[in-house]
Amino acid sequence: MKNRCYGTNSKIGVLGGGQLGRMLLQSALNFDIQLHMLDPDPAAPCAKIAHSFTCGSLQDYDTVLQFGQDKDLLTVEIENVNTDALAVLEAKGVNVFPQPHVLNTIRDKGLQKQFYTAHGIPTAPYQLFENKAELQHVPFPFVQKLRTGGYDGKGVQVIRTEADLDLAFDAPCVVEQLIPFEKELSVIVARRTNGEIKSFPVVECEFNPEANLVEFLFSPAILIPEIEAEAQRLAQLVIEELDMVGLLAVEFFLTTDGTLLINEIAPRPHNSGHHTIESCVCSQFEQHLRAILDLPLAPTDLIQAGAMLNLTGEKGFEGPVIYEGLEAALAIPGVHPHLYGKATTKAFRKMGHLTITGPDLQTVRERAAQVKSLIRVIA
Amino acid sequence: MKNRCYGTNSKIGVLGGGQLGRMLLQSALNFDIQLHMLDPDPAAPCAKIAHSFTCGSLQDYDTVLQFGQDKDLLTVEIENVNTDALAVLEAKGVNVFPQPHVLNTIRDKGLQKQFYTAHGIPTAPYQLFENKAELQHVPFPFVQKLRTGGYDGKGVQVIRTEADLDLAFDAPCVVEQLIPFEKELSVIVARRTNGEIKSFPVVECEFNPEANLVEFLFSPAILIPEIEAEAQRLAQLVIEELDMVGLLAVEFFLTTDGTLLINEIAPRPHNSGHHTIESCVCSQFEQHLRAILDLPLAPTDLIQAGAMLNLTGEKGFEGPVIYEGLEAALAIPGVHPHLYGKATTKAFRKMGHLTITGPDLQTVRERAAQVKSLIRVIA
Repeated sequence: MKNRCYGTNSKIGVLGGGQLGRMLLQSALNFDIQLHMLDPDPAAPCAKIAHSFTCGSLQDYDTVLQFGQDKDLLTVEIENVNTDALAVLEAKGVNVFPQPHVLNTIRDKGLQKQFYTAHGIPTAPYQLFENKAELQHVPFPFVQKLRTGGYDGKGVQVIRTEADLDLAFDAPCVVEQLIPFEKELSVIVARRTNGEIKSFPVVECEFNPEANLVEFLFSPAILIPEIEAEAQRLAQLVIEELDMVGLLAVEFFLTTDGTLLINEIAPRPHNSGHHTIESCVCSQFEQHLRAILDLPLAPTDLIQAGAMLNLTGEKGFEGPVIYEGLEAALAIPGVHPHLYGKATTKAFRKMGHLTITGPDLQTVRERAAQVKSLIRVIA
Repeated sequence: MKNRCYGTNSKIGVLGGGQLGRMLLQSALNFDIQLHMLDPDPAAPCAKIAHSFTCGSLQDYDTVLQFGQDKDLLTVEIENVNTDALAVLEAKGVNVFPQPHVLNTIRDKGLQKQFYTAHGIPTAPYQLFENKAELQHVPFPFVQKLRTGGYDGKGVQVIRTEADLDLAFDAPCVVEQLIPFEKELSVIVARRTNGEIKSFPVVECEFNPEANLVEFLFSPAILIPEIEAEAQRLAQLVIEELDMVGLLAVEFFLTTDGTLLINEIAPRPHNSGHHTIESCVCSQFEQHLRAILDLPLAPTDLIQAGAMLNLTGEKGFEGPVIYEGLEAALAIPGVHPHLYGKATTKAFRKMGHLTITGPDLQTVRERAAQVKSLIRVIA
């Protein structure tokens, strides 16, 4: 049977042209496919290197419809896109992976939560509210998440006091109990049209509490085998129940009593899989391409221990970026740069990441700590 | 001290925009540098993806001079370029790595041979001739190599008989005895401006005799430690004696009596280093960038056994390329595609390569043989 999705010179449209698109492009070149990208920012990381670059809104129906109509396949590097247009394109025969119905479920955190409940998938207890006024009687502390539009730690906040309540988002939201967790874990899982599924080993994430962003990740995660297996099982269950084709990042809380709860999912390559470029047989970006191109999924085994350090803009600096200490960091064995090509930095902006590899996790942790002490993203 | 070669948004000019440039570009994106490329072919593998692409002759003085004058740094992915223009640019303060004097020595195989002789570096005995007529009294069999302009196995032929002599090149050439060798080996070595040197583990190459092209390479090479060490020593000696900054591929014959002779060198990323993308801590492309950008060189350790299979155009096919069997090959664990984005194939044209990785060399050899039996590049 002829592959409907892959051929040399397949025209792939990508909604979004940021760093995820950039790393996807690096991988796509190996398959001799064209990535055409749509992004609202004329200086997006993919603007100069995509096969073609269209500057336009990802939320605008007409823009997305027009962008997609001459493509063989559409995918996303961000979930907040116009899914009505994608559904029309899908109905016209364009392959859209992840499918619009998957994007609809995931990009609304309320629907995402209801999906977990409906399928018996463990997640933190929650309530849905329409606006700030409805939050008056929720007991403190709680986590408020905007149902739509949040990204990179924005759109999520902890409300601890009456005073915090003044700063609460006045929009449809999910409210959750604050979960006392021991670790944050993540599993990246891929699924092909024929149902083949492969997932990457569990990683452990360490967050920057101020920015609510992943700061470090470590792989392998230090877990008892039962937890590793259960995280894999749940990640595979979610992608199956979503009936999704593509790559899905599944983020977990491991609670202090040893329970796994799904925190959030993202239907695309994800920050918690960046180390796979160097640490695994196949990177998350190549696996995403294999899944959506209907090609055999690759093994996901860890070939070397890895850490990832996000390079985010230092607070108090805004302007043309300087990676202070980069040269010193590159002198440490196993340090791999990934700068995203963004010209200007600002507080907590994701500007790049470093992967740090080594023969074992202890070595990698030591190198990562050393790297962290050397490097600052300033202006 | 400020790094003269590297800064975010450094403008790097690359002479040549073929597959080596394409893989260099994939790596360069990680450093947030711009690669501007010059190539005579408007459909070159880098044409659509370089930061900018200039279509023009690499041998034309004015073209190279104009291309280079607004760049911070110039490098090459092919050695047959106008070095007079590069020397002028170097004198004007543009960083040119490898340096023009190195290119001059290497791209003329006669000067290359004289360089070995002058520095006591072992190589096959040779004579230099100006034209075909001068070859009348050379005893058969011998190898004739054009002094300049050969590439990818072209410009080299074995003359075994009086009849072959009719087909000899009528141009300045190097003539060598046919060396009875056991293995062909290669070492990739990098050198930075401050003299720091790092070399990759020795690899073993298997040639396609008809096309005189590398067909397979295997890493690690199966060698006694003394030969591994001697190959490393010679590769490092050559780059030092050349006083070269950049990446150098050093190809050896291991003769049946256990002697290493240098066959040829190439001052750039090389076919015999493609497996480093997946098999080593750092790829040859990243190492080339680190060397020319005056950044610390990376470790070169092998992290997993690797083979490389060149995907060359099947004889008898010419036209729009089809990678027959690619999907089946990708189902084999550890197979990594690298298609170069060339639209049309012809006999023996290098269209891509596959890297095959695995836990040990035996597994990798078996997988590589299986892949070879599955895939054909046809039209």
